[in-house]
Amino acid sequence: MKLLIVNSHQEKMSFNAALVEKSLSVLKELGHEIKLSDLYAMKFDPVAGRKDFPELGETDYINYMLEQQKASASGAFSQDIKTEQEKLKWADTVIIHFPIWWFSVPAILKGWFDRVFAAGITWDFGRIYEQALLRGKRAMLVVTTGGPEEFYSKKGAHGTTIDEVLYTVNHGTLYFCGMDVLPPFVGFSVFQVGEEGRKQYLAKYEERLRNLEKLTPIKYPSMG
Amino acid sequence: MKLLIVNSHQEKMSFNAALVEKSLSVLKELGHEIKLSDLYAMKFDPVAGRKDFPELGETDYINYMLEQQKASASGAFSQDIKTEQEKLKWADTVIIHFPIWWFSVPAILKGWFDRVFAAGITWDFGRIYEQALLRGKRAMLVVTTGGPEEFYSKKGAHGTTIDEVLYTVNHGTLYFCGMDVLPPFVGFSVFQVGEEGRKQYLAKYEERLRNLEKLTPIKYPSMG
Repeated sequence: MKLLIVNSHQEKMSFNAALVEKSLSVLKELGHEIKLSDLYAMKFDPVAGRKDFPELGETDYINYMLEQQKASASGAFSQDIKTEQEKLKWADTVIIHFPIWWFSVPAILKGWFDRVFAAGITWDFGRIYEQALLRGKRAMLVVTTGGPEEFYSKKGAHGTTIDEVLYTVNHGTLYFCGMDVLPPFVGFSVFQVGEEGRKQYLAKYEERLRNLEKLTPIKYPSMG
Repeated sequence: MKLLIVNSHQEKMSFNAALVEKSLSVLKELGHEIKLSDLYAMKFDPVAGRKDFPELGETDYINYMLEQQKASASGAFSQDIKTEQEKLKWADTVIIHFPIWWFSVPAILKGWFDRVFAAGITWDFGRIYEQALLRGKRAMLVVTTGGPEEFYSKKGAHGTTIDEVLYTVNHGTLYFCGMDVLPPFVGFSVFQVGEEGRKQYLAKYEERLRNLEKLTPIKYPSMG
């Protein structure tokens, strides 16, 4: 496999970093090819704007999505975006690591989607979901939560499940772009479970990595 | 009312900017006090990190949330965060404008939540939802979509409703912090509806603003 690993955590000694390290070491040991996007280490700029299109002339108004589509024809994106898009094209599997902040991705990762997953590159007008441009590639989220598992249910404190929390990324972004989305790996309450709990999560995650090729993607209803 | 208006769109001639302009002009006309956080104009930095805590010493590891909580006791946040937290404390009503990108907020707004809505300031351990720290304040999202309204249903292309798309912000962030969440104002497919459609949306939004004080918040089940 050709794998792109995305790390969205700033701390080298965090549990997220330990999961990323597990991805890198186990997948390397299994003989796969790996590229890493370590967003904090790269100082990745998450703010979408005019600077993303170096060939843009003077104009009163742009529609960011239409500029993406124009740029996709000529490759006229800023270099940091192009570098990430190349990795995305190269990979057949993308593993995205992040801590859940406010029931969503950290801003640095949101900006990676906003800027890199451009119209014309990952999807296009009339080409979304099953018709989108990243068909044949697989993606998997590896996430951690602060709150305990029992909070994540319809009747729990959060009033929603972890699958619903991740829906806008799994379905709304990855599947929207045509990717096969593998079930997420979730470490609940990693701050509270203690050293032993975190070791168990790492062991469980290693097992997940060793079975990556056999995993069945989430089956979403066809958009028809 | 004391209103904080948040603008998360980069283009001055966008429809989002027109909605923000409507907020400013109508609410001013009605005699309310207004502060504006124009995130792009302010060059707001959305990336959470160690720099957010100027008094932080040398250390191998920080937990961002715990550092927020520590900083909240002494006010030891970076100046850009403090400025926004002051506005939040001052306001009794917060109106947050953004275009929906990837079924979520743009990165610049996500980072505003990540950094400004700190533990110890908007919520605390054991103080979430009905017990959180922003009780008594109201919030409302004003959003635009690219896709048409019919895509946003359980059986539509997106397989989800706009209320579910906004749940992680409305419930998971604003209500989590104790705010009363007003129904969102949604402009669907604002790119496709044409000049006339956009004018209708602006008129409808003006009506919404003139009735802001009478609006009933979304009723969420109690976390018990």
